[in-house]
Amino acid sequence: MKKAILIVQCPDQKGIVAHVSDFLYKYQGNILEVDQHVDEEIGMFFMRAAWELESFGLEKDAIGPTFEKEVAGKFRMKFDLYFNFPKPRMAIFVSKLSHCLFDILSRVYSGQFDVDIPLVISNHLDLKEVVTAFHVPFFHIPVDKSNKKDAEKQQIALLEQNNIDFIVLARYMQILSSDFINHYPNQVINIHHSFLPAFVGAKPYHAAYERGVKIIGATAHYVTEELDAGPIIEQEVARVRHHNTPADLVQIGQDVEKVVLSKAIKYHLERKVLAYRNKTIIFY
Amino acid sequence: MKKAILIVQCPDQKGIVAHVSDFLYKYQGNILEVDQHVDEEIGMFFMRAAWELESFGLEKDAIGPTFEKEVAGKFRMKFDLYFNFPKPRMAIFVSKLSHCLFDILSRVYSGQFDVDIPLVISNHLDLKEVVTAFHVPFFHIPVDKSNKKDAEKQQIALLEQNNIDFIVLARYMQILSSDFINHYPNQVINIHHSFLPAFVGAKPYHAAYERGVKIIGATAHYVTEELDAGPIIEQEVARVRHHNTPADLVQIGQDVEKVVLSKAIKYHLERKVLAYRNKTIIFY
Amino acid sequence: MKKAILIVQCPDQKGIVAHVSDFLYKYQGNILEVDQHVDEEIGMFFMRAAWELESFGLEKDAIGPTFEKEVAGKFRMKFDLYFNFPKPRMAIFVSKLSHCLFDILSRVYSGQFDVDIPLVISNHLDLKEVVTAFHVPFFHIPVDKSNKKDAEKQQIALLEQNNIDFIVLARYMQILSSDFINHYPNQVINIHHSFLPAFVGAKPYHAAYERGVKIIGATAHYVTEELDAGPIIEQEVARVRHHNTPADLVQIGQDVEKVVLSKAIKYHLERKVLAYRNKTIIFY
Amino acid sequence: MKKAILIVQCPDQKGIVAHVSDFLYKYQGNILEVDQHVDEEIGMFFMRAAWELESFGLEKDAIGPTFEKEVAGKFRMKFDLYFNFPKPRMAIFVSKLSHCLFDILSRVYSGQFDVDIPLVISNHLDLKEVVTAFHVPFFHIPVDKSNKKDAEKQQIALLEQNNIDFIVLARYMQILSSDFINHYPNQVINIHHSFLPAFVGAKPYHAAYERGVKIIGATAHYVTEELDAGPIIEQEVARVRHHNTPADLVQIGQDVEKVVLSKAIKYHLERKVLAYRNKTIIFY
Repeated sequence: MKKAILIVQCPDQKGIVAHVSDFLYKYQGNILEVDQHVDEEIGMFFMRAAWELESFGLEKDAIGPTFEKEVAGKFRMKFDLYFNFPKPRMAIFVSKLSHCLFDILSRVYSGQFDVDIPLVISNHLDLKEVVTAFHVPFFHIPVDKSNKKDAEKQQIALLEQNNIDFIVLARYMQILSSDFINHYPNQVINIHHSFLPAFVGAKPYHAAYERGVKIIGATAHYVTEELDAGPIIEQEVARVRHHNTPADLVQIGQDVEKVVLSKAIKYHLERKVLAYRNKTIIFY
Repeated sequence: MKKAILIVQCPDQKGIVAHVSDFLYKYQGNILEVDQHVDEEIGMFFMRAAWELESFGLEKDAIGPTFEKEVAGKFRMKFDLYFNFPKPRMAIFVSKLSHCLFDILSRVYSGQFDVDIPLVISNHLDLKEVVTAFHVPFFHIPVDKSNKKDAEKQQIALLEQNNIDFIVLARYMQILSSDFINHYPNQVINIHHSFLPAFVGAKPYHAAYERGVKIIGATAHYVTEELDAGPIIEQEVARVRHHNTPADLVQIGQDVEKVVLSKAIKYHLERKVLAYRNKTIIFY
Repeated sequence: MKKAILIVQCPDQKGIVAHVSDFLYKYQGNILEVDQHVDEEIGMFFMRAAWELESFGLEKDAIGPTFEKEVAGKFRMKFDLYFNFPKPRMAIFVSKLSHCLFDILSRVYSGQFDVDIPLVISNHLDLKEVVTAFHVPFFHIPVDKSNKKDAEKQQIALLEQNNIDFIVLARYMQILSSDFINHYPNQVINIHHSFLPAFVGAKPYHAAYERGVKIIGATAHYVTEELDAGPIIEQEVARVRHHNTPADLVQIGQDVEKVVLSKAIKYHLERKVLAYRNKTIIFY
Repeated sequence: MKKAILIVQCPDQKGIVAHVSDFLYKYQGNILEVDQHVDEEIGMFFMRAAWELESFGLEKDAIGPTFEKEVAGKFRMKFDLYFNFPKPRMAIFVSKLSHCLFDILSRVYSGQFDVDIPLVISNHLDLKEVVTAFHVPFFHIPVDKSNKKDAEKQQIALLEQNNIDFIVLARYMQILSSDFINHYPNQVINIHHSFLPAFVGAKPYHAAYERGVKIIGATAHYVTEELDAGPIIEQEVARVRHHNTPADLVQIGQDVEKVVLSKAIKYHLERKVLAYRNKTIIFY
């Protein structure tokens, strides 16, 4: 089914829901989902509406300009319009760990994710065989202190050649430069292996073990310039006990990581995530 | 803050959201919450809207008739209108176990529940002291096979004298007659101490122990004629292990029961529960 | 590290722990794990001990007879002795769904499961490509009403030729005969896509949807003659909401299924599961 | 049932379990629970054993000296011996919030906690009525910057007069001095309203809201000199969404706090908690 998704954001005031729903009704949109949220603290209104395109009274290209003229202009709205065709194009960055990669590829295989994966990029060769077994092109771009800038240039070139819409860091163990991140604002999803904001940075499972926590977690977030501090998309936790070693925590945590990352990808793919003020609204 | 809550239900068709939100906009309603749900299987549309009454352009008594005339009539809508004043009046039925009762009373004490409790009814005297310590009138109505009909007559008389809106069975260990239940359709909330539909009936923790389950649960539901088979409002679970005895399960389960029951009461109080087809829509 | 695992079961009485630990101390066993459980209801004692074999004072083959003579005989103990070498040999049965299969194979790939998989058997061809991509032999044995007995004969022949220790039904959608099951008592692990004992049998997600539950689950259990009624090894749940369709439940549930099944396999591989009286003791 | 609990801690070596269980067997102890743990990182062994005193071959007072002579001395063991009689004596400190207090009192009422509560101390008068309704003496000791030292002197005097064994800070909003804490090492249990180590200090729910986390939590821990940094006894979490205000988080969190604190009290009462290296071993 071909559908359109409208994401709206504006200062809160009376009549917004009425005007947006009048617009969809006027052109005979068959609404699939509508969700709204008001952030009372800052007086902002957010809305997401999805509707079927078939039998809708406006051509795909006319929807944006018409909505701008008839509704958005009156309410100082910022809005984005998405369509579920062509399929979004996702790049995956990995290092050596396979659990998140496998989980994503198996969901694509089974049809759970409606996405194209034109390429996987890695700074190591370890996962090449896995990726190619799934018939996905694999690019090896080694990264070290001396060549980081260069490596990112190569990565960006590949991403642009392949018209990549968003990037998933599936336990990619390199920190991206601000430059890279600014190319893809709120389009780079990372999985961090702790329950943020606890245990920012390297070796969070070891830090969790040292602190003696009874629950560990994982956090999927959009990457921003500050390390592990971007808008949180999804989190999940698992219980651990005193007899669990750091190696146990790594293993228990991996089951959480892969589920959290896949949920975040799913929300992102369905345009259910609105990032603002370093937080996210998730319309699930 | 004085507010109105509108619950709408009708066959799904285009324009419903537009018409309802136009109505609220026309009379300058400051919308607090709007949620909708379409059951695709049966083609039914459900909506809940809450708005501030202050500065709303219709008097309290005029809202229903005006909405009927301007909107509901056109869409064959069934609708209900609620106001958060005066406070809803809740009766509690208990037997001997105190954990759910305490939890409810402590939430009323701390202001978490905006509700009046004109009375507690019990078939035993055990909890009289607790109830009176909270300055709530306690009525002892013993129930056995021979006097059940009579006992229910007394109960209903008390409920009617006290203008009770809804009833919470906080581990009340008697089965209510169909007659009683039909007096209060979707207004009697029960907590069953299992993860329904598993372990219907008496002694569910013992049955769970016998079956060797690894997780136990509790279920809050509206009471219907069929035992433990009414619309489920909320469920929650807790993990158990092989060394837990039936007595442990009872204790672990009580923590789940009280949380589940209190959530169900909260949803009911805020009119966030719509029961239909023996299920519930929960707009939380 | 080479290790031995001793599982003991006997009527409860004083001195059992003392005698078993004296035995391990006498032969200089470096104990890795000891766990015990008493079922008070039936007066039975259960124990699991794991220790390093290197520097142990008895040859591998002498441990059983010596333990029998010095300890087990005195306490009417039944005991089993396992070693983590050679690796256990696991067969996987699948039908068309890939999520559990992928999850297991990816854990073997990453070294999380210390197991050999000599073969995968399926009644369909759909997953052949996946399996062979992991370099695991795939056998297609179609099953229908007319050839069931024959098909099982072929399956058992393959299992015996390959010295299979235990079998995982990774969403294998055929019911095994009593005959088959009796070949592998407590050695066939199934994943059922409901929170047993709720929703036994076919289409549990649809049944859960119809009943309007707020939480769904999955159950890993040993297969016995009665359908979905064998000893439960592990269960887990996930929250669902009124807007989730049966198709959503299937998808949400698959994430639960794969985690539950993998935990059950892990417990089984480490000999941490004791099945008795249609329940399990899990020493994790 | 009268029982003894032995907690043992020593450098790990072969034969410890054998010697301790031989000791209990020799004097005909009916073992109820035995658990052990080895911290491989630091080579330390920990053990907890509980047994019935009736028919045990040593008088209550002779157990410690005999165990010292026959076992502990040989292994450089530190050990503690506890009995479940007389009942432990617990003091509760509160400020204005009632949810944890109610939860504890209702568990004592229903017999879930086998404990005496000789007094509740508060820096406010708000909860006096609740406490006295439960027939527990209430002491009001106001605290401000100028009188803190004096107030603690009064508190300690009351605790000592009442032979208090341990103290529960049930949302007591004052920081105790090092002096006070050193009087009660690992005997002061606090509930912190965040998932530590995230959101140390004041207003953690507001900090969690600002950070946009998807899950909040609560942590029960022993109080040490460093704020919110003592050994963690128990943690639990709850899911929150973008529409939850800080006030919602407070309310959702309170349900978690009371469950976590009560579990920690229960573990402590049953001597199932061993604190060392700023962590805890929990033998549940």
